[in-house]
Amino acid sequence: MAASALDIATTLIRCPSVTPEEGGALAALEALLENKGFRVNRVTFQDDETPDVENLFATIGSGAPHFVFAGHTDVVPAGNASDWSHGPFEGAVADGVLFGRGAVDMKGGIASFAAAALDFVSERGADFGGTLSFLITGDEEGPAVNGTVKLLKWAEAQGHSFDACIVGEPTNPSALGDTIKVGRRGSLSGIVTVTGVQGHAAYPHLADNPIPGLVKLMAALNALKLDDGNERFEPSNLEIVTVDVGNPAFNVIPARAEARFNIRYNDTWTLDGLKQKITETLEAADLGSLKLDLTFKRDASESFLTNDEALIATLTDAVEAETGRRPELSTGGGTSDARFIKNYCPVVEFGLVGQTMHKVDECVAVADLDRLAAIYKRFLDGYFGHIEA
Amino acid sequence: MAASALDIATTLIRCPSVTPEEGGALAALEALLENKGFRVNRVTFQDDETPDVENLFATIGSGAPHFVFAGHTDVVPAGNASDWSHGPFEGAVADGVLFGRGAVDMKGGIASFAAAALDFVSERGADFGGTLSFLITGDEEGPAVNGTVKLLKWAEAQGHSFDACIVGEPTNPSALGDTIKVGRRGSLSGIVTVTGVQGHAAYPHLADNPIPGLVKLMAALNALKLDDGNERFEPSNLEIVTVDVGNPAFNVIPARAEARFNIRYNDTWTLDGLKQKITETLEAADLGSLKLDLTFKRDASESFLTNDEALIATLTDAVEAETGRRPELSTGGGTSDARFIKNYCPVVEFGLVGQTMHKVDECVAVADLDRLAAIYKRFLDGYFGHIEA
Ligand SMILES: [Zn+2]
Ligand SMILES: [Zn+2]
Repeated sequence: MAASALDIATTLIRCPSVTPEEGGALAALEALLENKGFRVNRVTFQDDETPDVENLFATIGSGAPHFVFAGHTDVVPAGNASDWSHGPFEGAVADGVLFGRGAVDMKGGIASFAAAALDFVSERGADFGGTLSFLITGDEEGPAVNGTVKLLKWAEAQGHSFDACIVGEPTNPSALGDTIKVGRRGSLSGIVTVTGVQGHAAYPHLADNPIPGLVKLMAALNALKLDDGNERFEPSNLEIVTVDVGNPAFNVIPARAEARFNIRYNDTWTLDGLKQKITETLEAADLGSLKLDLTFKRDASESFLTNDEALIATLTDAVEAETGRRPELSTGGGTSDARFIKNYCPVVEFGLVGQTMHKVDECVAVADLDRLAAIYKRFLDGYFGHIEA
Repeated sequence: MAASALDIATTLIRCPSVTPEEGGALAALEALLENKGFRVNRVTFQDDETPDVENLFATIGSGAPHFVFAGHTDVVPAGNASDWSHGPFEGAVADGVLFGRGAVDMKGGIASFAAAALDFVSERGADFGGTLSFLITGDEEGPAVNGTVKLLKWAEAQGHSFDACIVGEPTNPSALGDTIKVGRRGSLSGIVTVTGVQGHAAYPHLADNPIPGLVKLMAALNALKLDDGNERFEPSNLEIVTVDVGNPAFNVIPARAEARFNIRYNDTWTLDGLKQKITETLEAADLGSLKLDLTFKRDASESFLTNDEALIATLTDAVEAETGRRPELSTGGGTSDARFIKNYCPVVEFGLVGQTMHKVDECVAVADLDRLAAIYKRFLDGYFGHIEA
């Protein structure tokens, strides 16, 4: 039997790989996988405004189908180490619980899929009828510029094409088996500016106050019902997150007023379609002689929904077999690197229980590590067995 | 014949009485009035947070009616003296125009009513059938704390009660005789704060965004039609002058949002009635679980309209007789010390042409100084003559 998920998780936690530091985590993974016959590439990416970051791509087998486990070895800072019951980079186990930064987000997830993969390869050899890869970045918690995006491009340039992916992020709110994430809402932010003419509050006819115009536009945005949601997604939602004028004087009518909004939207909308809708809504308002400016932020993300029934069914069955629970298929919550991977292949997310992520005393039950490894192993058996048949 | 308005104006301009400096201006006035038999009091007022300021009260005659000329010898700073065609405190006359800081606002006005009063007393003696006073402050352009407000209180404590007042501020937009101000709009400022619950833009159900609530309130304020105005006043007007949240993050729903407004209102409203109306309007909005806070600023002023027909008619007739023009009776424009005096007696404002006030090359036509002195003299004749009859 290969290394246990606990062994691997402990090893990884002991590597202080706070973004952007590699901290020895990728090297440990490299040694483990290479030893089992994986072809391992360590790739460093660079960019003008962010630190260089190391990444790892490992692969075994050949031909289709090509399945990928994706994740990150970097972790958020530990904060004040003295607030922890056990050292954040110590990897202590107490009462069946492994403590340490990254225990669930997501060195534990990586450890579980590494243990599963090593087990799978031990049983089936390298000739299992397909390809199995690891796509591991050190830049998920940071700017995410020198990580998954570039590693996917690099892998494509190397001739790899993927058929399915599981990201091992912690997806379960309270117990292993709760939730598989099968999609994500998209996010779109924008800035609405209204420009008028400055003046004295005692002589409003000589000024043109932009605030009533901006109030109209905000009312129109707040009244907008984007959609009703659907089976997989909640209704899309727009929040105005700030309004600012910055005029310190009660007797001055300002020249400019600005509001900023963020939209979390479902697969009813394409990004362009949504931008169009917002633009039309704002342009429909009667602003008189006031001038409207609308800018969308460039960090928008598309919504997506993974419709690969085989991938979802194989994972769902594996979860149910190991936990006795049928996981909910969810599209809620924040963002992850899955938003980049979905452009290359169907992707779902399933990992540990997220409750302690990014907190003091981040920890995972050792039983969960083993159970997650068993789920991943059962998935691999099903996935490659199924295709093989 | 007593000193001419030009002589007095030149003397006063040469006193550099930038608020709060007396600069010799009140002393010059004191000498001039005392010499003609006025009883002159120089009174200095003090307050915790502002500089001490000198004021002057002078009176002649006895009994009712008691008429007051009111004004200020302090001036706003000259700015860069080298930008002026003639020194701002030089009192140069060129082509029939007197240059200097305070030429129209309002050393020129004081000079004209001083010349008129001296002339009137020369003709009629001290026994003209009433009382004539000067209420002169050195704190009109500054915080207005140690000036007219306290001087009025002081005079009242001395046993004076007034029957009518003219403030010699520059009221004419383009030519002498344009405008008598017979009232002022009031001003009321306030702050509306809406408090909700902060949260992440991806989880709006866990937050309570205050911005849609504030947008509702601002829409209600913007939709408010306070009144239609009347013969003497324009419609009351509300301007939202700023809206601020100050949230830098697009993915955060803020806890608090604030708007500030200013209202210029006519005599349809009392200050308390208007506060009541604003409070009711805001409280009528459905804010769900959001919390509303409304604060009115303490520097609010009441609107007022002077209804003393005899005072207005006597001044209007004097203006028409000297200029050939029937002045408009106006309530427009900004604020002046008349807002304090109206609590003691009927008050109107009439002075020089305001175009150059507070500007580089502030100046007044010498002919206007003489004509304004003639208007004031004719007014005194009419006012005291009329009562005497
Ligand atoms: Zn993560
Ligand atoms: Zn003035």
